[in-house]
This record gives sequence, structure tokens and C-alpha cells, in this order.
Amino acid sequence: MRTHEHWGYRGFLAELLEKLELKPGDIVRVRKRSLIVEGMLMPRELLYGDKPILVVRLNNGYKVGIKVDESTCIEKIEAKAFGERRVVEREQKAELPKVALLSTGGTILSKIDYETGAVKPSLNVSELLEWAPELAEVSFIEVREVLRIFSEDMTPALWAKIAEEVYRVISSGYRGVIIAHGTDTMSYTAAALAFAIRNKPSPIVLTGSQRSSDRPSTDSAFNLHAAFIVAVKAPFAESVIVMHGETGDAYALVHRGVKARKMHTSRRDAFQSINDKPIAIVYPARNELRIVGKVYEERSESKEPILENHFDNKVALVKTYPGFSSEIIDFLVDKGYRGIVVEGTGLGHAPNAVVESFKRAIDEGVSIVMTSQCLFGRVNMHVYSTGRKLLEIGVIPGDDMLPETAYVKLSWVLGKTRDVDEVRRILRTNIAGEINLRHTLDLYPRWSM
Amino acid sequence: MRTHEHWGYRGFLAELLEKLELKPGDIVRVRKRSLIVEGMLMPRELLYGDKPILVVRLNNGYKVGIKVDESTCIEKIEAKAFGERRVVEREQKAELPKVALLSTGGTILSKIDYETGAVKPSLNVSELLEWAPELAEVSFIEVREVLRIFSEDMTPALWAKIAEEVYRVISSGYRGVIIAHGTDTMSYTAAALAFAIRNKPSPIVLTGSQRSSDRPSTDSAFNLHAAFIVAVKAPFAESVIVMHGETGDAYALVHRGVKARKMHTSRRDAFQSINDKPIAIVYPARNELRIVGKVYEERSESKEPILENHFDNKVALVKTYPGFSSEIIDFLVDKGYRGIVVEGTGLGHAPNAVVESFKRAIDEGVSIVMTSQCLFGRVNMHVYSTGRKLLEIGVIPGDDMLPETAYVKLSWVLGKTRDVDEVRRILRTNIAGEINLRHTLDLYPRWSM
Repeated sequence: MRTHEHWGYRGFLAELLEKLELKPGDIVRVRKRSLIVEGMLMPRELLYGDKPILVVRLNNGYKVGIKVDESTCIEKIEAKAFGERRVVEREQKAELPKVALLSTGGTILSKIDYETGAVKPSLNVSELLEWAPELAEVSFIEVREVLRIFSEDMTPALWAKIAEEVYRVISSGYRGVIIAHGTDTMSYTAAALAFAIRNKPSPIVLTGSQRSSDRPSTDSAFNLHAAFIVAVKAPFAESVIVMHGETGDAYALVHRGVKARKMHTSRRDAFQSINDKPIAIVYPARNELRIVGKVYEERSESKEPILENHFDNKVALVKTYPGFSSEIIDFLVDKGYRGIVVEGTGLGHAPNAVVESFKRAIDEGVSIVMTSQCLFGRVNMHVYSTGRKLLEIGVIPGDDMLPETAYVKLSWVLGKTRDVDEVRRILRTNIAGEINLRHTLDLYPRWSM
Repeated sequence: MRTHEHWGYRGFLAELLEKLELKPGDIVRVRKRSLIVEGMLMPRELLYGDKPILVVRLNNGYKVGIKVDESTCIEKIEAKAFGERRVVEREQKAELPKVALLSTGGTILSKIDYETGAVKPSLNVSELLEWAPELAEVSFIEVREVLRIFSEDMTPALWAKIAEEVYRVISSGYRGVIIAHGTDTMSYTAAALAFAIRNKPSPIVLTGSQRSSDRPSTDSAFNLHAAFIVAVKAPFAESVIVMHGETGDAYALVHRGVKARKMHTSRRDAFQSINDKPIAIVYPARNELRIVGKVYEERSESKEPILENHFDNKVALVKTYPGFSSEIIDFLVDKGYRGIVVEGTGLGHAPNAVVESFKRAIDEGVSIVMTSQCLFGRVNMHVYSTGRKLLEIGVIPGDDMLPETAYVKLSWVLGKTRDVDEVRRILRTNIAGEINLRHTLDLYPRWSM
């Protein structure tokens, strides 16, 4: 009994599995009336509670739950139980390109401790390969835990820490590095790594999961597989986000970190490129990567990366709206903030009532960058008088940068220099593809109607 | 000479027009080598400076500039010069439905004072009909100036003023009301009117222009025409935004005000519905309106509108990000703010470091509403521990409301009551279509790749 309780199953289902000598990891065929399912037996899902639901992982990575009753027939096709640990070490092939997987927390690597059934935010290589054996086909994997946090708790200081770890890895002969990251703030971290590590020899790949790994609909294995393909095969050396490209399992998209944004609270294809195309499409089923966008930085083993990972934490991102009070700006200046990214309206406007506070801030050496809450398009402060007034007092136009990217960039620039002219110059210089000078009409998505 | 300088043309072009007895308003045919253009002669465009460029307005509303040289031939086809004022009064037909056009400022009604060539943010009916004669075909128009501001300077107090004026109009037998509004904050005002006027008998239509009326590519006439069609023909009585639906001139879309957002800094089709479909499509060329979405409130002359236009101005909209400091929340509470809408991450999260400040705010009677910077999708704070913690301390989930709409709604609710339980109850109740319980997959736009 104890064994099966280890795997979470209980009652008659636990007894049945024991009788059939089935353990998670075994390949099984389950028949129930007209339904036939073949795949890897998985531990019980916590979300099913005490219901007698058997969980089987299909070849495409999805898990299905099958309610077991008298009509259900379960056969063992192949004994590969995790407990025997025989799959793992053998499947790591030393001749494959070395990829480092850095875990920071988040949904993707959580809740896959099959033995205890408990939540565990990180894992070792054996556990990873038990769960996603396809990864061993493309790379020799090393797993390292850098952080163990929810991504909503990310900070500029932690960006610096991740950057240092990534720098260490890509300076020492790895084919690529993957960062498992919570999706909430993944694009901020991707932008931070784009700026903090210059002259990248290999890709820095962030990936995550929109559905927790203990849910049948999890996208963890799919995204991780796609991320490994990018780490190994990509001809570019940029900080990118690799996530589902649509709701199905056909492809993942590779978004330039500085141009990507989480645009949906729950969809698998939540991440999208704004004011830019994705760099590439990945078809995990075929281990294939196809370039579709512009490549800024190319992969090259001979490149020596440069680490510039100091981020100023006295920077704020502030959105304006009707009724926005200038006292918020005054407060930030009083508190010693050195930079403020404004998420203004339209072409880059803020209420005229706030202009005086901006002016005082700029006079006191605070850098103010204007972006647009429209997200799509480009700030143009020459068109209307409010914009011209803001330019005159010294507000820095953020071009077509996302407000979030401008925030990360300003924090990074102020980590390098406090010379206001230099801050303005670097802010307006394209460093890692964050400023896209050429917008084609098709960059704007097609909306349903 | 003076006459032509009045219309802005100068030098040899002024002399030529004088010789041909041509005035703006006349219908002309212009031939230049293989180019033939027919339309209404317009005054000089300021943006062409002193270049000898003749401006002709085509039947589709577009203006073209033609550089006049020796090879250019200009013929008068019909004398309809504006100066003669003979078009106007005659074209207002008293038997047509009465529509009030309220101007608040913004690009749409600006820069169409042909006689002085100066910027003039508002206009009278005669001027309007000279410029957009098609409007007189569908309605009897009254123009009223409510405000003369840039829309980035809009405030909750001004929403109240517009609402009062709109209420007065729709209480007195008008078929509909149109509000000409700058696009920067149009969706905030549209949401404010959705809440401030309940039991609407007729539609409240906001429209504007993404290109200034003095530019050849202006969308003013097109949008205004579409807005009039909605005011006259729509079977619904909601606060809506009517703007270009695509880059061409085929159709305009009618967006529910509480679900619309300006998603591009400069495109004509900048306004889009988020988490909802547009209510209708308008084909101005055919004077046609087609319902495509769900209608919440129906038009009915027998409905008595209710005015509830008090908005609390001690409400803030605050976006969180990595490194967001709780001192911003503390400051707002210290300053006596009664409501804070948080634009959090993902499913509705904020850094755990801010939870204490939220708790203190709530303990002091401040209402905190959680929305998502993803924009698309729905807040769900039951999935992860951070969300559950926020729910426990009393943060109000904003469901699928846009952060901007939640901000307007909270300001409106706090204008009605300060009872925290009542605030929560109204916040979570669907008032004007701002909460959409059913999301279909196609609400997410299709992104280019």
C-alpha cells in the first residue's frame, strides 16, 4: 500500500496498480469503452483529489486523466518506472552540446516531485529527464538553481544576479543557456539580460509555463523542449523568450526579449512581439527551428561576452491617466529617484498640469523617458503642442520601446552613468533591438470583429 | 491678391486661382501630365509651407496635394465656393432626426477654419457642413462646444461636466449625441459616460481623429460620418467609440466604451475592443450599420436617463513592475486616496513586498482593485499563493476589466458610496458591459509572424 500512496494514488486504484505491478514511468495502454490511451503512467494529480483518476502522459507531452471503473482495462506495455532510475543517466549523451538550465522559480519546474507529491520549485537533471525525456535527445543538460521565487517578486538586484550566472555559463563553452522563469515578469528579465550581457556568443533563452506542471493542460514540457532546440540550434545570440505560438502544439515562437510582452493572463500563446516580428518559429515535434524575423546578434563561439549588470533601483515606471496628479512625480523626486519612465497617452503626452513637475525633476537631474500606453506604434512628440512642450523641457522620447523595456533600459543606463547627456544618448541608441526603426503594417495584429 | 492670401495660397498659384476665379469649395478638375484629379478645391495646407501645392478633396474624403507647374491644367467644373455660403442652411433638413454634436477639443474638429487658416478647436454647423456635407443627409445637426482642451488634460471633473451636457441632450428628444474628443483619453471618457448615465434612451457616440484635419490623410470626415450613422440608426443605447476599423475607408467599428482601448499611437484603426467584440460595423459609403456583437442596452425613447456623474478624484491607477516600491502605495494612502487600481502582473499579482502596504491601505478604508497589465484575459487570484494572499487581505479582483475602465469605475463607485462592502459589491457587478463573463478564443487578435 505504502508504495502506491507514495505516488499519490489511493484506495482501489492504488490496489489495482499494485496488483498490475505498475509504477509511474511505465508505458501503459488504458482502454475504457471506446477510449484507448497510450502513454506514460504518471503520479496522481493533486487537483483530482481522492477521485480514482489515472493520469497518463501522451507522447505529445499532454497529460490526460481517466476515471477508472470496472470497465477500464490497464495494460503494461513497457516497464520504465522512474523508481528504477535506469532511464536517466544513460540518456545523457556527453557528445551532445552542453546546455545549462538555470531555474529561478515559477510554474514551469514546479510540482513535479512525484515521490512526495509536494510542491518543489526546482529539480535535478534526473528528475527533469524523467519528466521530459525528449530533452536528452538534443543536449547534455546541467541544471542549476539560481533563485527560488515567484516571478512577481523579481527585482533589478535579482536581474543582476541572474545576469552574473548567465554570464558565467556563456563564458565557459556552453552551447546555450535556458532560464526557467515565471511568466508574470519574464519579459522584464529578458530585457534586462539583453542589456546586461553584451557581445553574446550564444542565445539566452527564457521559457516558462502558463499552466502549472501538475495540470493536465500544462505547457511546461512543450516550451522547455522548444527552448532546448533554440539553445542548441539557433544561429542568433540574443536574449529571447520561447513560448507557445498558438493554443495547439504545432509551434513555439521565439520573441526578442526587448520586444516581447505577456499579453494574456492565461493563454498558452500569451507572449507576443510588439512593434517587431518574432525572430523564429520552433517545431518541437520535428526538432526544427526556422528564422522568420530579423537577427541582430549572431552566434559565434569567438565572441567574448561583456557583463554590465548594474541596475539602478531608483527608477520608477508611472502611467498617466485623466486626473493623474503631479504630486506622484514630486514624491518620486523627493525620494531621490534618478529616473522615471512615463507611460503616457497617444503619441507621448502627459497632462499639461504635470509639466511643471517634470521640469523640476529634470532640473534636479532626473531622467524622464516618455513611452505610450498604446503599446503599438511610436512616440512622436513633434505633432502636438503638449509633446513639443515636453521635448523642450527635456523629456526623452522612448521611440517605439515598450514602457517595460524602457523601464529596464533606463535602470540599466543609470547603472552605468549618471551624466544626463550620456543617459539621453544611450537611451536613444539601439542597443539590443529594442528600437525598431521600420514598422510594417503587418506588425499590428488582426483583431476579431 | 488679398482674397487668395485669405485662403492661404500665395505667389503665382494665388494669381492663377484669382485669374481662373477659383475659390475653395469649387469643384475642380486638375490635370498634370498623366494625373487627373477631380474634387473640391481646398485652402492651402499649412504643412506645405510656401510650396505651390494645390489641395483637392476627393469624393472619398481624402485630400491630395498637387504641385502646380507649367504642365498643370486646372478647370472649374462647378462653382460651389464656401464664401458664397449657399450650400449650408439649405442642406439642414428639419424633418431629419436631430443629433447633437458636442465638441470637447482634440484633433477632429481642429484646423478647419479655411478663412483664416488658423487653428480653431471648434466650429459651427455651417462650417461643419461645408467641410463634411454628407452629414446633412442623415441628420439635423446642432453643434455645441462643451470644452476646448487637449484630451491628455481630461480629468474626472470634466467627465462630470460632459456627462451633464450629454444627459441634458439625451433627455430632450434628440435621436443621439456625438462627442468629438481627442483620441488620447477617449476610452476613459467613453467609460465614464457609460457609468455616469444609466438607463440611456439613445446612443452616446464618441469619435475623433488620428490625423489632424489639416492633413491630407485625415480621418475626421470619415469617422464623423460613421458616428452620425450610429447616432441615427443604432438600435443600441450604449456609450460607444466609433473609429476607423482598418487602414482603408471601407468601414468603421463601434466599440463598447468600457471595453475599448487606443492600441496604436498613430494608425487610423488604433481603437480596438479588448476582451469583447465590437458591437457593430458601419459602412459610411452605404449609410449602413450592421450589428456584429452583443447589445447590452437597447434604444428606447421611453427610457428616462439617470445622471450619476460624481467621480471621486482621490483614486489612482498604479502599475507594478520588478522593483516596484511599496512607498508609492504608502504615499497615496497618506495623501488621502480612497481608491487604488493596481495594474498588476499575470493573473493579478503584485510583489509580495507590497502586500503589507496594501493591507494597511485596506485597513484604513482604501479600496484596492486588481487588474492585469496583460490587458487580455481575466484576473484569477485563486491559482497562485500570491493571489490568494491578496484576496485574503481584501484586494478586489477586477475580473476582465481593462485597468483604465476599472480606474474610471472605481472613481465612479467612490463618487456614489464610501461603504467598503458596497464599493466591492458594485465593483464586481456588471454595470455597462465592462465585465464580460464569456470569452471566446477569437477575442484574442491574430498576431503576425
